[in-house]
Amino acid sequence: MTQSNALSTVRALAFDVFGTVVDWRAGIAREAAALATEGGRDGDWEAFADAWRAGYGPAMDRVRRGELPWMNIDALHRLILDSIVADFGLGDLDEAARTQLNRAWHRLAPWPDSVEGLARLKRRFTITTLSNGNFSLLVNMARHAGLPWDCVISAELFGHYKPDPETYLGTARLLDVAPSELMLVAAHPGDLRAARAQGCRTAYVIRPLEFGAGHPLPDYAADEFDIVADDFLDLARRLGA
Amino acid sequence: MTQSNALSTVRALAFDVFGTVVDWRAGIAREAAALATEGGRDGDWEAFADAWRAGYGPAMDRVRRGELPWMNIDALHRLILDSIVADFGLGDLDEAARTQLNRAWHRLAPWPDSVEGLARLKRRFTITTLSNGNFSLLVNMARHAGLPWDCVISAELFGHYKPDPETYLGTARLLDVAPSELMLVAAHPGDLRAARAQGCRTAYVIRPLEFGAGHPLPDYAADEFDIVADDFLDLARRLGA
Repeated sequence: MTQSNALSTVRALAFDVFGTVVDWRAGIAREAAALATEGGRDGDWEAFADAWRAGYGPAMDRVRRGELPWMNIDALHRLILDSIVADFGLGDLDEAARTQLNRAWHRLAPWPDSVEGLARLKRRFTITTLSNGNFSLLVNMARHAGLPWDCVISAELFGHYKPDPETYLGTARLLDVAPSELMLVAAHPGDLRAARAQGCRTAYVIRPLEFGAGHPLPDYAADEFDIVADDFLDLARRLGA
Repeated sequence: MTQSNALSTVRALAFDVFGTVVDWRAGIAREAAALATEGGRDGDWEAFADAWRAGYGPAMDRVRRGELPWMNIDALHRLILDSIVADFGLGDLDEAARTQLNRAWHRLAPWPDSVEGLARLKRRFTITTLSNGNFSLLVNMARHAGLPWDCVISAELFGHYKPDPETYLGTARLLDVAPSELMLVAAHPGDLRAARAQGCRTAYVIRPLEFGAGHPLPDYAADEFDIVADDFLDLARRLGA
């Protein structure tokens, strides 16, 4: 089967969200900086965002290994936040301020092409999230950022975090499509490889600023993904949407 | 607590769908009539729609009692369809025609006020489905009818059909709101009573044509629901949206 034949069967697109649709680093750094300025504190708030994000994979792994009970991302984000505030001079933030800062993940801004690209893709495909973010986080984010999803699908619905197979197969089942009719769209090769292993199509969208300008981009093989796109508008063009 | 205070806490609206948002009777009758005309058949297609719908509650009860394994509504609709086609002279419909007719439930049209009313309510509240319809059915319907949901929630996510408590409580949990912050909107007093028993707010929307003109409306007590509305525009006015 040629690539174009393989892609003609795609009926639904499932999007990774953090880093693929929204710019978590700038959003978290901005809210932390605003909070710090109020308190007269200085700091490197992009490094703070990076540290918070860096705790995310290991925290999900602890859930996956059963060292933590199933916890949603709001709860995992809060655990990580509490573990890093002291390192950034924010150890005296009270409960209300921590709750407010933890919700910054619900208020992240989309990349400049995200909303228009999703609107174009929606004309031809069912578009959904497939994120480790919890359901309410994704709903709140969509309302805040104007993301025009047909529906919201979260790892929370399956009790499994990506890249567990249950998430990709569960998404196909909920949408009543075969895995080969579902395309995962993500800025992260590992996520895409796991989806491909379950029979899904894959689109790698390059987000060079996710970890800040100059951060090295991940390696991938030339024929590893069905599509490699510069942004969501480029993805829409390549998919004929 | 006065009614207006009780309602000021509402953050999310969960909508029953069949009969409340969309007109299943006219939609099913129209598709059945079109199919029958193709085959040169006559019939009372509103009675056919009523018969199909009448099989729905008993079929869900068989799932609830464990006489049937968990089946989604597409599968239950198909079981019922197969049991009534002969009574309406459609016994010779082949597999493809039955599959096509069964999907008519994905293509139902909204009541005239539904889309505009939902758009208004969405400005102030998170709006979701809470339907026994399966997830993919609700997603397809929203795309077809232009229903601007923030997210789609189906009984399928909980493995329980309404009016089981798990559906109302599960919706509140997914949206991260208290039951008292969630309002169920439905044209069916039984659904509303079950939601109220779990602490949810309730809005009864009168849909006098759901079962056809002249069909008696259900009884309810004057103070039984937080709101009684004529349609979704009236509901938006009463909720200040």
